[in-house]
Amino acid sequence: MGSTWGNKLKLSIFGESHGEGIGAVIDGLPAGIDIDLIRVQHELNRRAARGNPLATPRKEGDQIEILSGVFNGKTTGAPLAGLIRNENTRSGDYSKTKDLMRPGHADYASSIRYKGFQDYRGGGHFSGRLTAPLVFAGAIAKEVLRALEPEIGIGSRIVAIGGVKDDAIAYWKEYQELIKGFKNPAFPLYTPALEEAMKQEIIAAMEEHDSVGGIVEGFVTGLKPGIGNPFFESIESRLSSLLFSIPAVKGVTFGDGFEISAKRGSQVNDSLRISDHKIETVTNNNGGINGGISNGMPIVFRVAVKPTPSIGKEQQTINLAEKKEALLKIEGRHDPCIVIRAFPVVEAATAICLADFLI
Amino acid sequence: MGSTWGNKLKLSIFGESHGEGIGAVIDGLPAGIDIDLIRVQHELNRRAARGNPLATPRKEGDQIEILSGVFNGKTTGAPLAGLIRNENTRSGDYSKTKDLMRPGHADYASSIRYKGFQDYRGGGHFSGRLTAPLVFAGAIAKEVLRALEPEIGIGSRIVAIGGVKDDAIAYWKEYQELIKGFKNPAFPLYTPALEEAMKQEIIAAMEEHDSVGGIVEGFVTGLKPGIGNPFFESIESRLSSLLFSIPAVKGVTFGDGFEISAKRGSQVNDSLRISDHKIETVTNNNGGINGGISNGMPIVFRVAVKPTPSIGKEQQTINLAEKKEALLKIEGRHDPCIVIRAFPVVEAATAICLADFLI
Amino acid sequence: MGSTWGNKLKLSIFGESHGEGIGAVIDGLPAGIDIDLIRVQHELNRRAARGNPLATPRKEGDQIEILSGVFNGKTTGAPLAGLIRNENTRSGDYSKTKDLMRPGHADYASSIRYKGFQDYRGGGHFSGRLTAPLVFAGAIAKEVLRALEPEIGIGSRIVAIGGVKDDAIAYWKEYQELIKGFKNPAFPLYTPALEEAMKQEIIAAMEEHDSVGGIVEGFVTGLKPGIGNPFFESIESRLSSLLFSIPAVKGVTFGDGFEISAKRGSQVNDSLRISDHKIETVTNNNGGINGGISNGMPIVFRVAVKPTPSIGKEQQTINLAEKKEALLKIEGRHDPCIVIRAFPVVEAATAICLADFLI
Amino acid sequence: MGSTWGNKLKLSIFGESHGEGIGAVIDGLPAGIDIDLIRVQHELNRRAARGNPLATPRKEGDQIEILSGVFNGKTTGAPLAGLIRNENTRSGDYSKTKDLMRPGHADYASSIRYKGFQDYRGGGHFSGRLTAPLVFAGAIAKEVLRALEPEIGIGSRIVAIGGVKDDAIAYWKEYQELIKGFKNPAFPLYTPALEEAMKQEIIAAMEEHDSVGGIVEGFVTGLKPGIGNPFFESIESRLSSLLFSIPAVKGVTFGDGFEISAKRGSQVNDSLRISDHKIETVTNNNGGINGGISNGMPIVFRVAVKPTPSIGKEQQTINLAEKKEALLKIEGRHDPCIVIRAFPVVEAATAICLADFLI
Repeated sequence: MGSTWGNKLKLSIFGESHGEGIGAVIDGLPAGIDIDLIRVQHELNRRAARGNPLATPRKEGDQIEILSGVFNGKTTGAPLAGLIRNENTRSGDYSKTKDLMRPGHADYASSIRYKGFQDYRGGGHFSGRLTAPLVFAGAIAKEVLRALEPEIGIGSRIVAIGGVKDDAIAYWKEYQELIKGFKNPAFPLYTPALEEAMKQEIIAAMEEHDSVGGIVEGFVTGLKPGIGNPFFESIESRLSSLLFSIPAVKGVTFGDGFEISAKRGSQVNDSLRISDHKIETVTNNNGGINGGISNGMPIVFRVAVKPTPSIGKEQQTINLAEKKEALLKIEGRHDPCIVIRAFPVVEAATAICLADFLI
Repeated sequence: MGSTWGNKLKLSIFGESHGEGIGAVIDGLPAGIDIDLIRVQHELNRRAARGNPLATPRKEGDQIEILSGVFNGKTTGAPLAGLIRNENTRSGDYSKTKDLMRPGHADYASSIRYKGFQDYRGGGHFSGRLTAPLVFAGAIAKEVLRALEPEIGIGSRIVAIGGVKDDAIAYWKEYQELIKGFKNPAFPLYTPALEEAMKQEIIAAMEEHDSVGGIVEGFVTGLKPGIGNPFFESIESRLSSLLFSIPAVKGVTFGDGFEISAKRGSQVNDSLRISDHKIETVTNNNGGINGGISNGMPIVFRVAVKPTPSIGKEQQTINLAEKKEALLKIEGRHDPCIVIRAFPVVEAATAICLADFLI
Repeated sequence: MGSTWGNKLKLSIFGESHGEGIGAVIDGLPAGIDIDLIRVQHELNRRAARGNPLATPRKEGDQIEILSGVFNGKTTGAPLAGLIRNENTRSGDYSKTKDLMRPGHADYASSIRYKGFQDYRGGGHFSGRLTAPLVFAGAIAKEVLRALEPEIGIGSRIVAIGGVKDDAIAYWKEYQELIKGFKNPAFPLYTPALEEAMKQEIIAAMEEHDSVGGIVEGFVTGLKPGIGNPFFESIESRLSSLLFSIPAVKGVTFGDGFEISAKRGSQVNDSLRISDHKIETVTNNNGGINGGISNGMPIVFRVAVKPTPSIGKEQQTINLAEKKEALLKIEGRHDPCIVIRAFPVVEAATAICLADFLI
Repeated sequence: MGSTWGNKLKLSIFGESHGEGIGAVIDGLPAGIDIDLIRVQHELNRRAARGNPLATPRKEGDQIEILSGVFNGKTTGAPLAGLIRNENTRSGDYSKTKDLMRPGHADYASSIRYKGFQDYRGGGHFSGRLTAPLVFAGAIAKEVLRALEPEIGIGSRIVAIGGVKDDAIAYWKEYQELIKGFKNPAFPLYTPALEEAMKQEIIAAMEEHDSVGGIVEGFVTGLKPGIGNPFFESIESRLSSLLFSIPAVKGVTFGDGFEISAKRGSQVNDSLRISDHKIETVTNNNGGINGGISNGMPIVFRVAVKPTPSIGKEQQTINLAEKKEALLKIEGRHDPCIVIRAFPVVEAATAICLADFLI
């Protein structure tokens, strides 16, 4: 339970970190959509962060195999299933520490939930590795949007890593520039000059066998007004249900988010105007959404990413089998900062959400 | 579309601000649950904030009538339907301004979404008034939880109003005290001394025909570990989908939320320990949830509430029918700060979410 | 659980036979659809069979009140809620027999399901009376279809009552004539001459304090090809899930149904041809559906309706409270044949199903 | 759209007849259930009817590979995914006839539905081959039921093939015998003496390059009373939505089905009695279900299976690309009677339905 999502598009993800494979089935796609496998694989490669010295050295090939739903390069309208075989898994690493609950991880909560039957190797189904099927599904969703709503652009940027924080973007038209590309697509920043300082935050954490968190901002340009619904099917409700599915996400805000709560209505109500015969708002404090429905301005939202819970430092925990306290030092190397791999996942979630609204 | 929610419990809310009535149907309730109508009505009264000089003077009786699903004071297992008749509606107020899109409101987005056929009177289905059916459903959910999981406590507090902000609660055991009650239940504060300053924020906004936002913290004590799911059915995903359904909510965080993103793993990983033969964490930076599943600690989350968009100040906007710019001054009085009415709605959303997991 | 249905359209029905009222909430309707309340009430009157000497004499006003979702005579896009107040309920009739499980009724199964907490008066939520909200929802669905797909016609006919059986309609073009109307709309027959014999079956059963079953055929003309899906969302799967919701229905077939199973492929494969530049089949043994998807021919299906289980004859049963055998003679008068009230419900189910596919 | 099913258990099936593979993902399974892969494969082998001279000679290995959700022989609680690679596909057979719409098949309806982008090879996603993932899911569901509700028995029998029809089983206790096994499990008959005559029906059809239909009866013993729901989530509604998903099924009845409609209430109301301190009914004309809920008697239902539409005889049809009439002779050999492969699929659907109710 928990790995299925969608109204018009039905997404089902499966797999465990050290099982046979991971993948996704997407039902409800329209027929006749071009699927460019190079673009799809590229999205997976962005997430894999292959060769990035700041990412985990596990060599994840993440080669996607399409099992069904594509014929002659186009969707058939039948379920599209994709499979990524797991490679480079060293299960031996895990059996000896399986009873030691890693702090900040799902180990303890999932042990209770599944009565100890969960696949504990590498976090099993709770592994960050399961974001690969999400990115795959998002890549397919991007293909769908490209065909149906070519005006839409989906982007993301790193807003903060540890203590280094980039500026907010005050004027919404700047997103229309930003969507065209970043100076360093592997480290997308509004203020490129911050890249070095942010990387130093990661390196500092890494050197201390620690990890560090950050903030990702997602945005959508070119979404026409009138998309979404009130209440439970609002853009915020639907998108947040996907964003909170990404392991390590602890907060989601739209528009000015928590900043808005300290302000006056007269400061944050987005006035409407007519510019060049088009209706738009002057500001975009509501992040492009009113009453759960798009208003034609860029959708802007932020995601708080916690520091990777896997750290090399010694931590206090319990041995669940023996019901006693224990010390744990997590061996091997892990991502010191998941933010640099999370932004493609945030985009994938966004694409899935929009495709579900728009197909 | 958008007004139906739930997996095991199916909630359907209906109504418009100035229509015949508003209400909710809840399917999937277990049979034999005591429904104390006095407690249910009390929850509605909390939301109505009747007599509170800081709230809107619209006299909302909000008297609930149970239409079905309760027999001899207990649930029957059949759908429980409740109806609140609208009273004191003055529709004449709205026809003359219907084409003027109120900034910060759903007016423009919903006009496009529903091609102008939406009920524009008082915001129609987008009115904050629709939180009454949510509170009703939450009150029923609280009755269910009271019967099935009596250990669970659901509470909320005001964390900030405008610029006045209360402290974070560092040690999670304090929530077990807080759940017993607040000094002023109509203005629930961790630091009661802040009440006056917060009220002054509201009064100041009111006097300037303006409004002000704030932050609400919700919390759950006594929830056993192992409740929830990974990914799309995580506690965070499910609860946020309800919280973002509350009009004016622009952000939802769990545990340390955005604060966590500036920290190191070693600072925020919640170490586990055994205390009095029970497993617990030392800190609760993850807000009681790991991998989408409860870990037995209090569930703690925060909600950013924007300033009420209805303000008396003159605002720039457009006349949608005439497609030209216009000035708007919203007549009548409105809630200068929705926070003081929002916290019972946050609790209701929490109760609905938990009932859906636990029935 | 069980009273909510739909993918794009979300239908929630509520109520008990002797509670405050019965009704339905329909979410997901498009905005701007004309709702003619006279036509809607007419559908409810068809089901009520008011004044028909062969129907139960309970005077059911079945006056529908629209609570929300309609503004200026058109749908708003917000949930449309309708309420029918119960009248003429004599609960005193039921308390003394509540422990006697009526054979053929839901009494025993629901007593176990709901641990005795169900509303037992008049069958509670299991009453045939709950078909009124279904018919209301169907009437709204018909309004939607009238606006969106005016070519579609939905009809039904009585095929059999007890031992008197009308002919099958061999050539599908005859349905295009039949949809224009029946000689006696209150007793719709392909062969009107059978009306008297069928009525005699009912009268004979009634005179013996017994009841009798029958068969209803539903049909849809003018449905374009390509509507539906494979597998679980096939027209057959979706429509049968609604038809089996109608109390007393024990069988659903499409096209030739069980007859087809005795035949050869060469006899029943519907050959395709081009007639007047249009693609059509020569025969329609598949009832207008292949692979779960419409093929442009009339959708034809049949529903087996069992005899009303409420009969005046003495029956053997048990007293559930005392756990011993007992004799039961059901007092009062009941419908001797539900078929004459069921066909509008079959049409309603069909309209709901099609609206869910087509909106 | 259409290949996803379930409330508590979420089933997603995928694949095309001549694609890379077919399979299923099942989310929502409880953790810790033993999965006996030999039993699971055995169910697939039953459907494959390997070596049966009356079945199609396509050598379908149908070897299942579990990709996820099973660890140390038990379910983990995470999604269980299974994959069957397609082998022995000769796509060349299909390209030349792709524009000729096979009568009785989904070809024409799906060509319109998917605008010609569907995978036409061997029926693509509409192929009977897709019942293999259903049987796989059913086999897993059987493992779940075996663990959770060991009293439950799921069985099926062939009731008719062409004109040869077996008897109805009047007394419900006989099902408790029948569930123990059939004389010929590959041809399960209540009256084994009919096997030869039934096979002759198939052979006769085969020799004339034709096909023949039949009837399958499914049954469930040992299901406790109180399982199910009213209306849309009744056992009938849920089970029929699965049964009508099986290609070639055109009718579903419960209990006496269409026979009941010709009878009197006094003949078919199932009287209750107490036998050996247990409540039971004397007869079982309602097929173990009242008001959508089990009453403790065997669930009995029938499924009408049409003759395989693929026949060797020349048929009249159209060439869709050229929009003109054409003659079609389907090459190769096909199942002359799908009934002998359909009964394990009927059981699978039943197991899936029950597991969804009972987990």
